[in-house]
Amino acid sequence: GGQLGKMLCLAAANWDLDIFVMDTEGCAAQAYCKQFIAGDFRLYEDVMRFGLMVDVLTIEIEHVNTEALKALESLGKTVHPNPHSLALIKDKGLQKAFYFDNKIPTSKVFYFENKEKLKEKVFYPSVWKSRKGGYDGKGVAILNNPKDVEILPDEPCILEEMIDIEKEIAVLVCRNADGQIKAYPSVEMIFDPKANLLDYQICPALISDDVEQKAQNLAKELIKILNICGLLAVEMFLTKSGQLLVNEVAPRPHNSGHHTIEALETSQFEQHLRGILNLPLGSTAIRLPSVLLNLVGAEGYVGEMRVEGLEKALNTEGVHLHLYGKKITKPFRKMGHATILNKSAETALKNATFLKNNVKIISNE
Amino acid sequence: GGQLGKMLCLAAANWDLDIFVMDTEGCAAQAYCKQFIAGDFRLYEDVMRFGLMVDVLTIEIEHVNTEALKALESLGKTVHPNPHSLALIKDKGLQKAFYFDNKIPTSKVFYFENKEKLKEKVFYPSVWKSRKGGYDGKGVAILNNPKDVEILPDEPCILEEMIDIEKEIAVLVCRNADGQIKAYPSVEMIFDPKANLLDYQICPALISDDVEQKAQNLAKELIKILNICGLLAVEMFLTKSGQLLVNEVAPRPHNSGHHTIEALETSQFEQHLRGILNLPLGSTAIRLPSVLLNLVGAEGYVGEMRVEGLEKALNTEGVHLHLYGKKITKPFRKMGHATILNKSAETALKNATFLKNNVKIISNE
Repeated sequence: GGQLGKMLCLAAANWDLDIFVMDTEGCAAQAYCKQFIAGDFRLYEDVMRFGLMVDVLTIEIEHVNTEALKALESLGKTVHPNPHSLALIKDKGLQKAFYFDNKIPTSKVFYFENKEKLKEKVFYPSVWKSRKGGYDGKGVAILNNPKDVEILPDEPCILEEMIDIEKEIAVLVCRNADGQIKAYPSVEMIFDPKANLLDYQICPALISDDVEQKAQNLAKELIKILNICGLLAVEMFLTKSGQLLVNEVAPRPHNSGHHTIEALETSQFEQHLRGILNLPLGSTAIRLPSVLLNLVGAEGYVGEMRVEGLEKALNTEGVHLHLYGKKITKPFRKMGHATILNKSAETALKNATFLKNNVKIISNE
Repeated sequence: GGQLGKMLCLAAANWDLDIFVMDTEGCAAQAYCKQFIAGDFRLYEDVMRFGLMVDVLTIEIEHVNTEALKALESLGKTVHPNPHSLALIKDKGLQKAFYFDNKIPTSKVFYFENKEKLKEKVFYPSVWKSRKGGYDGKGVAILNNPKDVEILPDEPCILEEMIDIEKEIAVLVCRNADGQIKAYPSVEMIFDPKANLLDYQICPALISDDVEQKAQNLAKELIKILNICGLLAVEMFLTKSGQLLVNEVAPRPHNSGHHTIEALETSQFEQHLRGILNLPLGSTAIRLPSVLLNLVGAEGYVGEMRVEGLEKALNTEGVHLHLYGKKITKPFRKMGHATILNKSAETALKNATFLKNNVKIISNE
């Protein structure tokens, strides 16, 4: 029922599909689904109760109870992504092992049962990841010295080698049960180091045709061996030596695909529906170059949200504004996004920078 | 609460606006508004009850009780379009008189109180229009002989001269309370003579730059003198002698603007919201040429609707399918539309023709 669920409902509305949503009261998707069921998607009982009401199940967040999804699948319900692959992806340790087992290029990794074991073999710099529960930069930390280790939680984790990153890109790919697969053109991501959240995202990515082709092929290979129907978002690093390494994947609509609503021929949300319903996949052609800007809560504001600079945003060429309907803002919370289109990618970036400097999500008091 | 209301709700969802809808239970927009109020928009009491709940009122059909809208406006509610102009537009006789009073080019007209008076001065060929209640081709008839007159209802009407039509075009124009005005590029319409409903619609229209400019200026002039905020759809005839004549106007989102959702920079629904909320108007630039195909109920089918050829439609390049969510189909009922985009207008038309021949709205029986 978050923003991804809401945008999925809006895509489904075009075809008048009967979408049921389960999440907590007041969530973003509640007003736009055909039927809303209050419940906790982490709980076996709630997911079972919900799943028995519908024909096809999908997710917009990984933390859905996997055991319930497996049980529903064995009862004959269609579940996409398949619960086996979802369980694998949810555990960043298993996900990483899967890449090695299948010869998918990725960074080196070390496994630890707890913080004590980690301390014995930690090295710097490195990337720490919780084996479960990471989302929007939580569950991930860059380790530069023993102080960074001290503040970590005590839980099973992995440690990855720091990569010499040239660029970070993402490829969305979709598959249907007939086996049809379509990849979207790569997007290039620029992160805000403070919030560890996506800052800008540019489509098309400024990479060579050769790297673009390799990235798309890697994404297609992954969705095939994971046997996933619907979307798979594949985050990759392009190293300074020109190698592509898979960072992680998400088997659902993804922040890196929001620009597809306006900038591409088929939005990621419609494509996901096509994928999970075994309909022919839509074109992934680019209509116009785009820049995506996440609108996160400004620092220093907690409370009922308000957009400062709304008129300036709506008066900027090529701006498409999306506000998710979350009532309360807090620093770095994803409150919306803007996609800025232009025939010239350079102008789109200029307009996005203007927006970033003039639009703020603040609170009323 | 019809399809126009539904698509307005979907545009408003992007900004998380609190949209209330009043119409009959089961209408298309019901699932996508923040609050649904069952009621009859023709009734004074129902419109008053609804209007007092909201801050800004707008319409998606002309037949809303005008007296209630006037009363709500005098109580300080913001009502767009203004009820005075709405009342004028609803009466095709007054609308026509308004054109003559303001020197807006239009066809000659004759007024009749009833059928008897009409019979005294009828001429052939001519266009008969009811003074009230026309919609989707109802309330309009072509008269070729006395038999055509016999089947007409007995009510106040107008008779218009037949125009030697080269093309029928439409221009959507929008205005906000600050006085900002933006016109969309003209669309060219091709009608199905059997159903008197729009068949194809092409954007951009195949007209000279000079005629395009004149059409846009005419639409801008009209919205200004009608003092309307939000959208005004202006249907025009281009005569064989190269003259532009206004046929009729609609002060609301319009069938002739459905392609704007995908093919233009700002959808007509978002533009209408900008207009009635006095926000800066969005760009009306064309992203890609488009053909719009209305999906109407096939002849010979009445009952629960089903789409025949859905997979073929979704497998055709550039097709964007919209199903309105009306449960029951009947011949020529508007059940949905498809917008077909392509860099080549010719290819878009070819794909639209394929769709027209392969997609049918039928019933299950």
